[in-house]
Amino acid sequence: MTGERRNGFWDAVDGRAPMPTAAKTLGWSLIQADPERAEIEVSFEATEDFLNPAGTVQGGFLTAMLDDTMGPALAAILDPGMYGATLELKVSFLRPAEPGRLVGRGRVVHRGSSIAFLSGELLDASGQVVAVGSATARILRAG
Amino acid sequence: MTGERRNGFWDAVDGRAPMPTAAKTLGWSLIQADPERAEIEVSFEATEDFLNPAGTVQGGFLTAMLDDTMGPALAAILDPGMYGATLELKVSFLRPAEPGRLVGRGRVVHRGSSIAFLSGELLDASGQVVAVGSATARILRAG
Repeated sequence: MTGERRNGFWDAVDGRAPMPTAAKTLGWSLIQADPERAEIEVSFEATEDFLNPAGTVQGGFLTAMLDDTMGPALAAILDPGMYGATLELKVSFLRPAEPGRLVGRGRVVHRGSSIAFLSGELLDASGQVVAVGSATARILRAG
Repeated sequence: MTGERRNGFWDAVDGRAPMPTAAKTLGWSLIQADPERAEIEVSFEATEDFLNPAGTVQGGFLTAMLDDTMGPALAAILDPGMYGATLELKVSFLRPAEPGRLVGRGRVVHRGSSIAFLSGELLDASGQVVAVGSATARILRAG
């Protein structure tokens, strides 16, 4: 990727391809991407459809948001025709998250030729970190 | 829990309390629970709203399903007034999952007085395991 915003990820962000439905369901929106630093900042909308019995956002949905933070950190810097498939991810839930806007910050910690190590955190409206995660992704050629 | 199906989890399953919205969104349904063995089997409906750019179920949504498999394995055996809060979870994605019905099998691996260790797996319609996970939960007194 040489900064020209032409790959599957940027095609979706810039409207040349449909946004994946998972991203739509999570209210995903790009705040900013810094391809040089392999960092990304995105936002989500945690709706009333994502709540656990305690009335806060179910941890799995927070994980879906972290997955859709860390994945895009990698996707934003891949060459056209390549994509990242998450192999595993690990999340720690620091505090309950209320429904509403959440911000995800993701980073490519290390990128090899076929494997990338990712990290991310999810912040609530007051800027408190509600969850942190890490993931391992395989870099594959599309279709 | 002495098998009388009276706690927050069973109240929701048996219709005495509303089902959490996260469970509804994931199409959660109880197949069977074995409180003696601390095992549970549930099913989910992965809809077209949960897909990644490859058209398969986004890993985060599979994780939400595993969270809603492992959590209920614990919730089903808690005393009334207690609930489990997931502290961390780890998931490995073995193969892509198509939208449709998925089955979750969860188990309480070990339960202490305030911490429980959980495991789970998610199977597709053909019985293949698509993801496996483990989680650590804290056991708390409700509000």
